[in-house]
Amino acid sequence: MSDLDTLFERIAAGEIPSHRVYEDQHVFAFLDINPLSRGHTLVIPKKRYVKLDELPEDVAVALGKALPRIAKAVITATGATAYNVLQNNGRPAGQAIPHVHFHIIPKYADGSGLPHSWPARSLDKEQAPKLAQAIAQHLS
Amino acid sequence: MSDLDTLFERIAAGEIPSHRVYEDQHVFAFLDINPLSRGHTLVIPKKRYVKLDELPEDVAVALGKALPRIAKAVITATGATAYNVLQNNGRPAGQAIPHVHFHIIPKYADGSGLPHSWPARSLDKEQAPKLAQAIAQHLS
Repeated sequence: MSDLDTLFERIAAGEIPSHRVYEDQHVFAFLDINPLSRGHTLVIPKKRYVKLDELPEDVAVALGKALPRIAKAVITATGATAYNVLQNNGRPAGQAIPHVHFHIIPKYADGSGLPHSWPARSLDKEQAPKLAQAIAQHLS
Repeated sequence: MSDLDTLFERIAAGEIPSHRVYEDQHVFAFLDINPLSRGHTLVIPKKRYVKLDELPEDVAVALGKALPRIAKAVITATGATAYNVLQNNGRPAGQAIPHVHFHIIPKYADGSGLPHSWPARSLDKEQAPKLAQAIAQHLS
């Protein structure tokens, strides 16, 4: 197991700090540290499953229930009206961390968001806590 | 309302024919008629909601539960090991039909699947019924 394999489990457990926006029994959501746009959020099961098709039913239900709520909070907090939800399975499909994660990626008038290529930026460390808090507020 | 607005409701109701792979009380899944790769499947709520964040909880739960099962059936039936799940909200994010739909897009060694651009092909009308049946079989 490499550090990348367990990264998201350790983030969900709070062992590695993150900008958390949501948490329940099965689900954890936090800002992507290399966002494609402002508010780019990752939604994961706390327990590690590599691909979507491996999820047990209770976890799948929890994710399905959480995604619209988190998406609504992201767009409400950011003011974006358009957004993409993307979930990659397997390295050939662009999955970098072998732990199921849904990207919620706001799309803005300036073109930032999910593009044809993937020009990731660094998370603004100054703004991130405030943004995470603003999103979390709409989920509490 | 344009014909595109109600297209997926009419497909789910069987008023417009489709290559169905799954159906339950809330969810309907069928082969995309302009697939990015073999087995490209659309998963929709039967009732029309434009964006993910508009889904009521019972429908969100039903979609969350169905997605991993349908994904597993798609990869089992096609032999693909990698795949992307993409759901677009709003025209700026590439949403063409204003009715929530998740794309399940197998990724193959030949590069077909979700690319940097979106070179849609036409569904092979000869092969499609068999492929739909093969996927449906793994869901029954």
